[in-house]
Amino acid sequence: MRAYDIIRKKRNGHELTDDELHYVISGYVRGEIPDYQVSAFLMAVFFRGMSETETIRLTGIMLDSGSVLDLSNIARPKIDKHSTGGVGDKVSIILAPLLASAGIVIPGIAGRGLGHTGGTLDKLESIPGFRTDISIAELKDNLTHIGCSIMGQTEEIAPADRKLYALRDVTATIDSMPLLASSIMSKKLAEGLDGLVLDVKVGSGSFMKTVTEARDLAKLMVKIGNTRRVKTVALLTDMDQPLGKTVGNSLEIKECISALRGKWADDLREVTLTLGAWMIEIAVSTAGFTFQAAGRELAGIDEYKKGLAELINIGAAFKKFIEMVDAQGGDVEAVLRPSLLPSAKLIKQVQSDRQGYIRKMDAEKVGTATVLLGAGRKKMTDTIDHAAGMILNRKLGDYVKAGEQIAMFYYQSEEQAGEAEATFLSGIEIGPDKPELKSVIVDVIQ
Amino acid sequence: MRAYDIIRKKRNGHELTDDELHYVISGYVRGEIPDYQVSAFLMAVFFRGMSETETIRLTGIMLDSGSVLDLSNIARPKIDKHSTGGVGDKVSIILAPLLASAGIVIPGIAGRGLGHTGGTLDKLESIPGFRTDISIAELKDNLTHIGCSIMGQTEEIAPADRKLYALRDVTATIDSMPLLASSIMSKKLAEGLDGLVLDVKVGSGSFMKTVTEARDLAKLMVKIGNTRRVKTVALLTDMDQPLGKTVGNSLEIKECISALRGKWADDLREVTLTLGAWMIEIAVSTAGFTFQAAGRELAGIDEYKKGLAELINIGAAFKKFIEMVDAQGGDVEAVLRPSLLPSAKLIKQVQSDRQGYIRKMDAEKVGTATVLLGAGRKKMTDTIDHAAGMILNRKLGDYVKAGEQIAMFYYQSEEQAGEAEATFLSGIEIGPDKPELKSVIVDVIQ
Repeated sequence: MRAYDIIRKKRNGHELTDDELHYVISGYVRGEIPDYQVSAFLMAVFFRGMSETETIRLTGIMLDSGSVLDLSNIARPKIDKHSTGGVGDKVSIILAPLLASAGIVIPGIAGRGLGHTGGTLDKLESIPGFRTDISIAELKDNLTHIGCSIMGQTEEIAPADRKLYALRDVTATIDSMPLLASSIMSKKLAEGLDGLVLDVKVGSGSFMKTVTEARDLAKLMVKIGNTRRVKTVALLTDMDQPLGKTVGNSLEIKECISALRGKWADDLREVTLTLGAWMIEIAVSTAGFTFQAAGRELAGIDEYKKGLAELINIGAAFKKFIEMVDAQGGDVEAVLRPSLLPSAKLIKQVQSDRQGYIRKMDAEKVGTATVLLGAGRKKMTDTIDHAAGMILNRKLGDYVKAGEQIAMFYYQSEEQAGEAEATFLSGIEIGPDKPELKSVIVDVIQ
Repeated sequence: MRAYDIIRKKRNGHELTDDELHYVISGYVRGEIPDYQVSAFLMAVFFRGMSETETIRLTGIMLDSGSVLDLSNIARPKIDKHSTGGVGDKVSIILAPLLASAGIVIPGIAGRGLGHTGGTLDKLESIPGFRTDISIAELKDNLTHIGCSIMGQTEEIAPADRKLYALRDVTATIDSMPLLASSIMSKKLAEGLDGLVLDVKVGSGSFMKTVTEARDLAKLMVKIGNTRRVKTVALLTDMDQPLGKTVGNSLEIKECISALRGKWADDLREVTLTLGAWMIEIAVSTAGFTFQAAGRELAGIDEYKKGLAELINIGAAFKKFIEMVDAQGGDVEAVLRPSLLPSAKLIKQVQSDRQGYIRKMDAEKVGTATVLLGAGRKKMTDTIDHAAGMILNRKLGDYVKAGEQIAMFYYQSEEQAGEAEATFLSGIEIGPDKPELKSVIVDVIQ
C-alpha cells in the first residue's frame, strides 16, 4: 500500500477501504507518512467528500488512536452535550451543573476559542484560579462526587484527531462535513458516554450557513454515534445572531451566573433547557433514569424543561456550579460576587445612527468584533484578554431610537476598538419593519 | 498576506493575483512556506483549475525563479521540440541531429523516464560513455559547432518548477492542466528559444486520454509561449499504441540509428518529419531562415518534410548524430555497430493465442510491461536496465496467426517477466475485423 495511491483514489472520487484509511491515519500519527501527503489527501477529501461508511470508519480509527474514558465505576447515566460552535454560546457552562443537579453525570471535555467563536475553557478560566488542566483522575473524582466537571482535551483522547486537526487548521480543510463530523465524534465517543446531544448551530455565526448543510452534518453525526452504540440526538439551533446578551469570557461567565440564579435571556433559556431536556430523555430511554419533581415522575420534553427550570429556581443548579468551581480551584467568592471577576479598563457605548427595528445582527461579525476587542485568538498561540467583550442591549426584533445604545464594548486598549466598532456595525441592519423572528430551535434529528 | 488565505481562495474557486501566486511559489522556494501548505494548494488547483491568466502568471514566476540560457552569440534560429511523454517516443533523438543538419540550433534540455513513459536522457545513456550531465558551457559549445546537444535539467533552469514537480509527484497532483502546462513551458522558455514545437500526445499511453483534453492543453501551452514571445505551435499526435517498433532504452537507440540511416517505421517517420517540418516553418516565418534543397528554396510543410527526408537519405543527419555522441563522450564505435550497445541476457517471444487483426495495443500497458522488464523506474531513485525492453513485431491493424510472435522481450532476470507478459497481453485485443487506422497526426494548433 502507498500513500500516493490512496490520495489518488480519493482524488478520483472512489470510496476508501478501512485498511486504506487506517494506513493513512495511523501512518501519519506514527510519523511514517509525511504531512505534505496528508494535507493533499485532506484537500482531496474536501472536494470529493466521504461516504457515510468511510466517515464512520475514519471516526473509529481516530477514536482507537487513543483511549476511552472508563467511567464504569459511576452508576448514574453519563450524557454529554456538544456544540459545533457559535458566538455567545455559553450553554455548556450552565448545562453541566444543571444536569448534575438532576442526577446526570456530564463528563465535559471542552475546547478553546478560535477565529470568531469562543471556547468553554477560555470562559471558565476567567474565574480566578479555575484550572481546566485537571487530570483524568481529578475529573473522575469530580464526576463521582459532584456529577460535573469541565476539562481540556488530553493526550489520551483521539491523538490522531488532534494531529489531523492541527494540519487542517493551516491548510483550509476544516470545513469539510466528513472531517468535521469524524473529528467531533471521535472526541465525544472517547468520553465513555451513554448518550450524547449535539447542538448543531446554523446561521451567520456558525460553520454551517444553511439549514440543509446543518441538517446533513447533524444526520451524519447522529448516525456515527448510534452506529457506535452511543444514543445520539442532534438539535439544530439558530446562530444567525449571538446567543444571549454577552460575548466575551468574563462577561459570559457573569451571564451564566445570572442564568443559574434564574435570570436569563429568552433565547439562552430556550436553547439550554431544550438541550437539557433531550439529555434527560436519552437518560430515561437508554439508562433507566427517572426524572422526578414534587414526587412525580416527569415524562416528555416539555415536562423535562419545566423540571430543569425548577432546579434552577430552587438553587440546586447554582449549588452544583459552586461545587465544580471550588473543586477545580476557582475563586468561589468571585462567583458569589461577580463584580470580582476580571473587568475591563475601558467602556464604550455603540449607538444606532437611526431609528427602527434591528433586522440583522450578523453573529460572525459580532464574534470578529469581539476578537478585535481582545477576547479571542487569531491563531492558537495568541493570548486572550478575559475581561474584553460586549454586552448586547438590543437584539433581533428590538426597536432602537437614533443615538440609542445597541451594545456596550469592554476592552483594555483603544488600539483596535475603532475597527471592532466598524466591524460590529457592518453586521447590523436597522429598518422600519419589525422582522419576523424565527424559533431558536430549528429542528431535532433523532 | 498568508498562505492559508491563498489556499482558501483557490479552494473556493477564485482567481489568484500575480502577487498571491508569487507569494506562494517564492515563499516555497525560499523555504518560508511549508510543503504541507503547498501540497494542499496544489490539490485545490487540481480541483479548481486556473484561468489562462493565472497559468501564464505561474509560468512566468517559475521561469523567473531561475535564469534563461543566453544563446545570443549563436546567430542561427534556436528551435526546440517538446513531447508531453509517451511510450516508445524516441523522436527527440532523431530530430535533434536532423534539424541540426538543416541548419537549425536545438538546445535540447531533456528529462528522465518515470512511470510507464521513457525518457530521452535514459535512452542516450545506453550509449556507453554518453554524458548527459554536461555543463551549460559545453552545451553552448556543442550548439555552436554541431547545432545540437542534449543535456539534463540544471539547477539554473526554473528551480521553482523542479521543487514543485517533486512535490506534485508524491501528492497525486501531476495531471492538472494548468500545472502541466506551466511546468513544461517554464522549462522550455528558459532555453532562450526563437520557437517551439509541442508534441502533445493523446491516447492510452499519454497523460491526456482524450482529444478534447489534449487540445485544451495544447491551446494553453501555445498561448503561454506566444504571450512570452516565443512562437509556439502544437501538434496532437497519437499515443494509443507505442510509437515505432521498440520500447526500452538501448533498443530505442538502435531504432534511432536505423531511422537516421533511412530505415524506419511509418508512424515514427511521419511524426518525426511533421514535427521537424513545423520547426522549419517557425524558423522561416520568425527568424528569416531559408530551407534549401538542390539549390531551390522549399516552402510549406510538405516540402519541408521531403527536404528533411533527403537530409536523412544523404547521411547528413546521421553525421550530426555521430558528432553529438562524440562531443558528449559517447562511444561512436557502438553507434556505427549497434550490436556493441547493451544487450539483454534473456529473450522471450510473446505469442498470440489466436488469429486475427490486432485491434488494440494499449500503450500504457506496453509501457508498464517494459518497466517490469527492468527498463524503467517506479520512483525517481530506482536504477534502470538499459538493455531491457521489447521489439514490437506486430502493431495495430497487423494480422497475426495463432502462435505467431507479437513481440520479443529482452531482459536480465526472470523475476518479473511473467507479470510483464501478462500485463502486455492484457493490453492487446485481437479480432476478426481489420480496425480502421487513425492518422498519427491528430491535429495542429497554431
